[in-house]
Amino acid sequence: MKNNKTLKIRFLGGLGEIGKNMTALEYGRDIIVIDSGASFPTEEMPGIDLVIPDVSYLVQNKDRVRGVVLTHGHEDHIGSLPFLLKEVNAPVYGTKLALALCESKLKENNVQNYTFNTVKPSDVVKLGCFQVEFIHVNHSIPGAVALAITTPVGVVFHSGDFKVDLTPINGDIMDITRISEIGKKGVLLLLCESTNVERTGYTMSESIVGETLDRLFQENEKRRLIIATFASNVSRLQQILNLAAKYKRKVAFSGRSMEKVTEAAARIGELTIPPNTIVELDRNKNIPDKELVIVSTGSQGEPMSALTRMAADDFKNVKIGRNDTIIISASPIPGNEKMIYSVINNLYRKGAEVVYETLERIHVSGHACQEELKILHSLVKPRFFIPVHGEYRHLKKHLKLAKSLGMRESNMLIAEIGQTVEFTNKSMRFGENFQAGSRLVDGLNIEDSGNMVRDRKHLAEDGVLIAVMTLSAESAELLQEPVIVCKGVNLTDEQKEEMKRIVEKTVRSYDVKSMGDKSELRGAIRRAFKNYVFKRTKGSPMVLPVITEV
Amino acid sequence: MKNNKTLKIRFLGGLGEIGKNMTALEYGRDIIVIDSGASFPTEEMPGIDLVIPDVSYLVQNKDRVRGVVLTHGHEDHIGSLPFLLKEVNAPVYGTKLALALCESKLKENNVQNYTFNTVKPSDVVKLGCFQVEFIHVNHSIPGAVALAITTPVGVVFHSGDFKVDLTPINGDIMDITRISEIGKKGVLLLLCESTNVERTGYTMSESIVGETLDRLFQENEKRRLIIATFASNVSRLQQILNLAAKYKRKVAFSGRSMEKVTEAAARIGELTIPPNTIVELDRNKNIPDKELVIVSTGSQGEPMSALTRMAADDFKNVKIGRNDTIIISASPIPGNEKMIYSVINNLYRKGAEVVYETLERIHVSGHACQEELKILHSLVKPRFFIPVHGEYRHLKKHLKLAKSLGMRESNMLIAEIGQTVEFTNKSMRFGENFQAGSRLVDGLNIEDSGNMVRDRKHLAEDGVLIAVMTLSAESAELLQEPVIVCKGVNLTDEQKEEMKRIVEKTVRSYDVKSMGDKSELRGAIRRAFKNYVFKRTKGSPMVLPVITEV
Repeated sequence: MKNNKTLKIRFLGGLGEIGKNMTALEYGRDIIVIDSGASFPTEEMPGIDLVIPDVSYLVQNKDRVRGVVLTHGHEDHIGSLPFLLKEVNAPVYGTKLALALCESKLKENNVQNYTFNTVKPSDVVKLGCFQVEFIHVNHSIPGAVALAITTPVGVVFHSGDFKVDLTPINGDIMDITRISEIGKKGVLLLLCESTNVERTGYTMSESIVGETLDRLFQENEKRRLIIATFASNVSRLQQILNLAAKYKRKVAFSGRSMEKVTEAAARIGELTIPPNTIVELDRNKNIPDKELVIVSTGSQGEPMSALTRMAADDFKNVKIGRNDTIIISASPIPGNEKMIYSVINNLYRKGAEVVYETLERIHVSGHACQEELKILHSLVKPRFFIPVHGEYRHLKKHLKLAKSLGMRESNMLIAEIGQTVEFTNKSMRFGENFQAGSRLVDGLNIEDSGNMVRDRKHLAEDGVLIAVMTLSAESAELLQEPVIVCKGVNLTDEQKEEMKRIVEKTVRSYDVKSMGDKSELRGAIRRAFKNYVFKRTKGSPMVLPVITEV
Repeated sequence: MKNNKTLKIRFLGGLGEIGKNMTALEYGRDIIVIDSGASFPTEEMPGIDLVIPDVSYLVQNKDRVRGVVLTHGHEDHIGSLPFLLKEVNAPVYGTKLALALCESKLKENNVQNYTFNTVKPSDVVKLGCFQVEFIHVNHSIPGAVALAITTPVGVVFHSGDFKVDLTPINGDIMDITRISEIGKKGVLLLLCESTNVERTGYTMSESIVGETLDRLFQENEKRRLIIATFASNVSRLQQILNLAAKYKRKVAFSGRSMEKVTEAAARIGELTIPPNTIVELDRNKNIPDKELVIVSTGSQGEPMSALTRMAADDFKNVKIGRNDTIIISASPIPGNEKMIYSVINNLYRKGAEVVYETLERIHVSGHACQEELKILHSLVKPRFFIPVHGEYRHLKKHLKLAKSLGMRESNMLIAEIGQTVEFTNKSMRFGENFQAGSRLVDGLNIEDSGNMVRDRKHLAEDGVLIAVMTLSAESAELLQEPVIVCKGVNLTDEQKEEMKRIVEKTVRSYDVKSMGDKSELRGAIRRAFKNYVFKRTKGSPMVLPVITEV
């Protein structure tokens, strides 16, 4: 029964990054899940909307799942919750804003049967043999927490996403006092995020952005202001609202997620809206430029977002012109650079001024840099360490950082998705591998086989070529000239005619009549076409021969 | 005849960037072309290999083209030369290395009939009414030049790609003495590159990289070194060769373009290879790790490159392990971040050490930062200014920089591709627009319509759905159950059966017999399918109804 006396940490999710979207703790019959996030698809996944963790292991053990604990309300930590709860109906624990954001997500996905438990920092929740304490941290969304989880073999400290902001906008400084108490009593394992581990020094405070914005409000006093930022960065929104009140401007929220999040945050008291500040663009058309600030989605240049549509002159109530100053209060998430720069170029083309991160201190990260990570390590003083939330290169760098603080190499490791790490109160080792990875969400469906995405990539690279043959069921001869249809392939009409002759020749050269399912004929057509096209275009389209028999 | 007395600058090329791949000067009957580059395709162009300028205007006026002048041998300045010379056989002028690189390009593309003229810095060439002087500048490839072009209305100064490197590796400092003489005599127009206009200060010298590399050679004296860099950065290669000789290591070049460029550069004397330094990996298998440095392609994580294949354990003569240090001596070109980081992650997974730009001063840019741009503006002192080589946002920022140096707003402008700007000796204004833009090269073909790429994008996003109907030519009834084929669409077998019924119902509900080309029936099937699929998957696949009549 030795196995039952070990604590198991299972790494369930994260696309490209490890230990991000979902992690599980297991001891004896009890399992708890930390976060249930989603990732955005890469270019390698055309047409896919969302990437969620494969939760087969949890589904197989759903009776043992005591709860889902959320560290905060960002998409990469809550985005797959509707899909998880459809299969594993465990109670969910999170702070007010995280649960408010989950709620609308569950509604959209038609999940009705769920149990939400709102927690506050310093609360302790008992889930099976686990005791979970929620600890206030700073991050780019209010209500972010770290977790101190007391297990039968020791305390596991999970940092969540955090930074140390000594002058935060909403609420307090990260609760370093409590963390130092926990560290003093002894921590078995630290799981710590690694996003900014390559950056030296400290992350700047959110207040810095407020100072820059204040100056920009002053410098642009005659102009209309449009500020694009993340809807979930409620502290940023609060600063904009306060400045609008200070400089006597009205505020219009623009974009669906901006409207949704601000409504939710205001309702639960996380966002304070000064009286008579909010206007609606379609009802208040005659507000002078200098009295308006539009707060908009689209800080990543997302194709359908408010700012992208404004830049493309495709947004009903906002026409961009020479009296506009657009402030992009965000960093491009890796991979989004081209989209956002294309929006910026278009805004400039319309004569507007644009302020963005390379030019001003107009955004700060929500993640700890090296010195802040060192503070957490030094306070928690864990026996073992596993870096999480990062690509392999980040985790590797995080090991080096821990080593520089005195952690022994044998007491730390990098786990990959699908690996289990087992703990007693004095040992750490790899356990069994289990089924884990990514599932792709395409519209309303979850796509598991991978075939669909492979096919789409093939279609995208080389196009498709269809040959339709109508054969006599009796003589197996062509009853009609074959039909050639191609899309995404560069062929002339003459070449298509030649390909018809190839079909005819191929049909004649085979004893089609005695074939069973005609797959041999289809294979021959496929080979002949691939050959023909490759010689002429160096391309290799998907060839689909279709045979009908009459 | 007024029109004949103006100088016309035509902006022919650049994908996303303006005035980059190709620019033409025209006066009276004479046209000269500056550069003939290519761009790499964006994600929006699946399956496309290269993007080249639309040179219709030059083809229509090919008898008037007096020459093609190359500023240096980078892909974005010479990559479309084979395609241009096939249609416009004008003499080409460039420095030794630029022409050596063009030569192999022309051979690959089967262009035999061409005239190359090698020039040196300070040479002056007469092309029709134009006198072109070549001026030595620093850049990330040897043999880069700026151009001072004397025209009948004044001197046009084109910066080419440049930086001011006061401690360059190959050759001299940029010829600021000559530039100041030209400026003193009076320059009508400055065309200046804008790549780094958002960066303050100065670009670091190439020598800085040598210092870092020297330290890394020392620190890794027991380990095998693998250095990935741009093949065309001959000064970087020279520094690596010198260090290899200093630390008694052999050098193996790896990757096709690395072998090609080093061979060409050594042949023309731009690269000095110390005696007994070069080895070949497949012939010299037993060189100890500490005596070898492999110089490889793949600094951008390109899928088929040497380094990417090494990281994927798919490279015959190099197996990555714990005794390897990989140095990536390059910056990710925007859009390549994910690829290169994925290679770095895989190298770490194999236990190797990786040194890259966020961690060390291991790469410097080849382009002028703000202070260097100011130096050029101040030396050239042009009457008019047009920023080139950059996205719109860069050009806009470059106008501001020029304004800060005293340039009047009415004396500068941003031109877009397809625009002409006309000059007399004291005026600048927009002239006619002309046909220009991008042509897409797919394998061996040039794709002009844009349909192919649009189709491929559609296929990639939503897949393809084919319905084959065999109708009786006489009764117009279905002779067979319809065939449904789908690729990249998430449909169950039951759903495909339902779609067959939809086809049957649709055929019955139309008076197919009296239809001419059956396009009405095809339209109805398309609508019915799109409706059906959208309701079930939120997707909108390409629907291809095929009708055969027997």
